[in-house]
Amino acid sequence: MQKAGKRKPVYTRKLDFRHGRVEMAHGSGGRAMTQLVDQLFIAAFDNHYLRQMNDQACFPVGSGRMVMSTDCHVVTPLFFPGGDIGSLSVHGTVNDIVMSGARPLYLSAGFILEEGLPLADLKRIVESMAAAAQAIPVPVITGDTKVVEQGSGDGVFITTTGIGVVPDGVHISSERAKPGDKILVSGTIGDHGIAILLAREDFAFYGTLESDTAALHDLVAVMVQTAPDIHVLRDPTRGGIAAALNEIAHQSGVGMLLHEHCIPMKEQVGAVCEFLGFDPLYMANEGKLVAICAPQDADRLLDKIRTHPLGQNAAIIGEVIEDNHCFVQMETRFGGRRVVDWLSGDQLPRIC
Amino acid sequence: MQKAGKRKPVYTRKLDFRHGRVEMAHGSGGRAMTQLVDQLFIAAFDNHYLRQMNDQACFPVGSGRMVMSTDCHVVTPLFFPGGDIGSLSVHGTVNDIVMSGARPLYLSAGFILEEGLPLADLKRIVESMAAAAQAIPVPVITGDTKVVEQGSGDGVFITTTGIGVVPDGVHISSERAKPGDKILVSGTIGDHGIAILLAREDFAFYGTLESDTAALHDLVAVMVQTAPDIHVLRDPTRGGIAAALNEIAHQSGVGMLLHEHCIPMKEQVGAVCEFLGFDPLYMANEGKLVAICAPQDADRLLDKIRTHPLGQNAAIIGEVIEDNHCFVQMETRFGGRRVVDWLSGDQLPRIC
Repeated sequence: MQKAGKRKPVYTRKLDFRHGRVEMAHGSGGRAMTQLVDQLFIAAFDNHYLRQMNDQACFPVGSGRMVMSTDCHVVTPLFFPGGDIGSLSVHGTVNDIVMSGARPLYLSAGFILEEGLPLADLKRIVESMAAAAQAIPVPVITGDTKVVEQGSGDGVFITTTGIGVVPDGVHISSERAKPGDKILVSGTIGDHGIAILLAREDFAFYGTLESDTAALHDLVAVMVQTAPDIHVLRDPTRGGIAAALNEIAHQSGVGMLLHEHCIPMKEQVGAVCEFLGFDPLYMANEGKLVAICAPQDADRLLDKIRTHPLGQNAAIIGEVIEDNHCFVQMETRFGGRRVVDWLSGDQLPRIC
Repeated sequence: MQKAGKRKPVYTRKLDFRHGRVEMAHGSGGRAMTQLVDQLFIAAFDNHYLRQMNDQACFPVGSGRMVMSTDCHVVTPLFFPGGDIGSLSVHGTVNDIVMSGARPLYLSAGFILEEGLPLADLKRIVESMAAAAQAIPVPVITGDTKVVEQGSGDGVFITTTGIGVVPDGVHISSERAKPGDKILVSGTIGDHGIAILLAREDFAFYGTLESDTAALHDLVAVMVQTAPDIHVLRDPTRGGIAAALNEIAHQSGVGMLLHEHCIPMKEQVGAVCEFLGFDPLYMANEGKLVAICAPQDADRLLDKIRTHPLGQNAAIIGEVIEDNHCFVQMETRFGGRRVVDWLSGDQLPRIC
């Protein structure tokens, strides 16, 4: 189908990025679409592979193990303190790739646009996406654009897919957590979830909080160098660290014991959660990771993480224990224990 | 983020696929979501890579040239004669991969579901998708699911991304069309576009027409064996053969001359187009390809295509000519000539 990967300027009429809006014709595969693709997508993502101008991008690979991951992004609002759906759509997929210890290689991007979306908003989103990709760097080498009628979408949905290559000797996987392993988190929890919440509602008295959305490729590379035998890595996005740890516990057939007083959290996040009755353990993060490693590696790994700009508030928050029920438990500040269960309902929809 | 790629059954409560509907909680990353993923996606797409249960799928590759392609699918209605959005989402991306001459290896799938979608419809779509993938075969190795509120989506949007490997010595690309080359089409044009149109409106007097949605991997493999030096391949989806040929002409810096009487078309497609004022050259196809090759390869290639079930109505429809304006022209049945221009507007939205 019509792709960003296959166009040179067909003609030079300029799109009105100040006042223009997305029209159904921008998804038609005709002149209006080539105009949008040339003047926006190609201009923003410009790279050798995209310029191949085919329905698919062709690239060389060495032999080895590769990873592939995909994420649909439907976050609302489209713009929020600390980021937007564009940067988030790059960070989300890159982070899923690097949680295997892989080096990200390439991204594809699929846009589902709602008729009437201001072109200015789309341009801002695409340029933010391009900047996030270049900062890593990982090129967006192919893409697709569809337009749906007003009321059949919600501004813009972005699906990114990434591929990466796994270094030899690295075997990070969710079923490798063992009793005795230490559980680390790379920083304060819940920042993204609360930032989105505050951006939606008008809780002026809380001020604003920035999302932690960030690409973790460099932090993971440093961690893998320090402790190549890291057992598990996971980015605790939807469902927060509670969902991530329950999944790992379940996949490894182990239990976990967290220590509440060790879990790093911004004062403001704690305050908002207390006031609104949210549990920060279930709040989404977009620039944090959970790591599980052998006890002898934990302190060295923690020290290394803390030297990284994205890991300054890292902490060891608990340990893996034997438990046939695969429960995640937490020792509270008051010395009691509670089970940190799976989230059954939906604490905060469309967070990413 | 939460992936199909990382779940084992958490508990055994069964989803009600007869009366149940998609709820916001199915996108939450909690228990409801694992239930949907386990009982539907994993069950349907089950394969070794998906069962790795991580946020990304890890797979081995040999060294060489690979291709990557992505497609967002927003077709309406979700079910139509000859297919549905599920099979279409596999065929569309696989066809983009194979138009490079590549062998498809793996697919990822991203689902954006609208709250309230009947689970029975989703199950039918996912199982159709799984069947289409298994028929090739190309495994769906990772995925993502998001849910948006009622009115913020339209049932289900599916974004598939594929990767494939290109055989050595094959260099099929849109800028390789040369004056003198022959232009072939693998069968009747406009079937998909008209099938969707008839499925939307009630033109009972035309009866129904089936979409041509199909995976072209095997046809392309046969073609590449017969004529390894095929210059260009393109699947004429949105915008039909008119858009595909204009893009190729533009990218190769050549003109094209088509012969109307040579273009294969079903009588019913011609009748509907005439009655409703559509031009079949702009009508979408989902199981056809356009091939451009050197004149000495054309007849041999045509004969081979015609021996394939998906190429029985193949024909040579024109030739590449010198033209600095890169016009695509057509010699009409009445001997006149007209320019087959780019589609400016949108003949039929949400066709794929």
